[in-house]
This record gives sequence, structure tokens and C-alpha cells, in this order.
Amino acid sequence: MDWLDAVKWDAQGLVPAIAQEVGSNDVLMFAFRNREGLAKTAELGEAVYFSRSRNRLWHKGEESGHIQKVRELRLDCDNDVVLLKVEQLGHTPGIACHTGRHSCFFQRHEQGQGVWRSVEPVLKDPQGIYK
Amino acid sequence: MDWLDAVKWDAQGLVPAIAQEVGSNDVLMFAFRNREGLAKTAELGEAVYFSRSRNRLWHKGEESGHIQKVRELRLDCDNDVVLLKVEQLGHTPGIACHTGRHSCFFQRHEQGQGVWRSVEPVLKDPQGIYK
Repeated sequence: MDWLDAVKWDAQGLVPAIAQEVGSNDVLMFAFRNREGLAKTAELGEAVYFSRSRNRLWHKGEESGHIQKVRELRLDCDNDVVLLKVEQLGHTPGIACHTGRHSCFFQRHEQGQGVWRSVEPVLKDPQGIYK
Repeated sequence: MDWLDAVKWDAQGLVPAIAQEVGSNDVLMFAFRNREGLAKTAELGEAVYFSRSRNRLWHKGEESGHIQKVRELRLDCDNDVVLLKVEQLGHTPGIACHTGRHSCFFQRHEQGQGVWRSVEPVLKDPQGIYK
């Protein structure tokens, strides 16, 4: 069986994908990927997602230069979630988030206060990332 | 605004959730959570998901004993994905997967061969986990 056929695509033909940084093991981002995007990811060795808002393939870093080199691709026990171990290129430390932060998961729940608080620094002004 | 209202719930009233192990930073599993599940997760300090197959709240570990103590809750930049930093209880090393493995992401894509291969050991026979 083709490895792409082994993936359980959802009703929209997509699979959720988590990007994790090699080395730090930080979770950088989460996005969806269609069959073509997963095939291209393996072929290029760079993360290609499917943008639901733009309804097209999205080669991560195509505008920002923040390419994700894929070191490993993993599939979960139910064959319906993909994990990418990536090297986040284009800036040191790596910037995966469109807000200019290292990771998209920069809002922390503050238990006592019942709020989400931004707790990670902006590493680069997004205006300088997307020209 | 209530922190639960800040979350962008999908059409089914769910939000994708990634569980990551504190310390190792390993990604353990991925599942969905509804509003009640997220509220309970914060209240108990233990991971409560929504099981789409059983259509009910699922207190992770309720059968297996493999409870996830939640050390931190994070929300992504689009407010539509949650990351839980957890301590995986019930076994050392932690078992998050129903197959008896540490993580659900145990299938690795073998680039040259075009297959997914199981590359992580079963730490405990599932028959001994679910009695």
C-alpha cells in the first residue's frame, strides 16, 4: 500500500499536522495538510501545508523565508495525525509563528486569573518578515 | 472575556489539543476537546478530552490509570489549537498510547521505502492496561 493511502484523510481530504523542532523538541505550530502537501513535504524535505483560508498549498516560508527542513515524519496510532520533526530555518532562534515568535503556542492559561497571557517574546517584527 | 470564550471552537464545538510531556518535551498524543472538557481539564488539573467515537467526555486514564497531570495550558496564535504540557502518570516511562507505547507517534516514514514503520517499543501489553 502507498504510504499516502495509509493516512486516514478527513472528510475535507486533510490531516492535522504538528511541527516540532528537532533539538529543543518545542512544538512550533499546528496546521493541516492535504495529500498533495504531504507528498510534496516528503519530496522536497520541506514542510508544505494546505492553507484552508487561502484554499491552496502553502510552502511554509515562501514569503517569510522561515522554511522548515523536515528531518522526520511520524504518523500516530490511528493513522490520522502527522508529526513533523523540523529544523526551523531563516532566523536564530527559529521563528515559526507569523507574529514573529518562536512558536505559535505563546499564550499561557493563568489559572488563578482565568485568562490567556502572552508569555513569549516577539523575536522579529512581522512587518519586517512579510514585506 | 471568559478564557473559554477566547477559544475559537470549530463547527462541532471542538478544539484540537496536543499533549506534550514536561521534561522530555515529547509529543505524546493528539485529541479533541470540547468546552466542558477544557473547563474540567483546568478545574481538575488533569487532561479531559472529548471522545468523538464514544461521543462523551473522556478523562484520560479513567480505565488505564494513565492520567495526565496538566502543568501548563497553552493556546496558539489563532486561538484555535490548545497545547497541554503534562506529566504522564501510571507507568515509568510514561505510556500515553493505547497500544502501550510512550507516544502515539511511533510510526516513522521511511523515505526510501515509501512506508510507515513502527519504531518505538511497546512498554506494556495493552491487555494488561485495559482489564
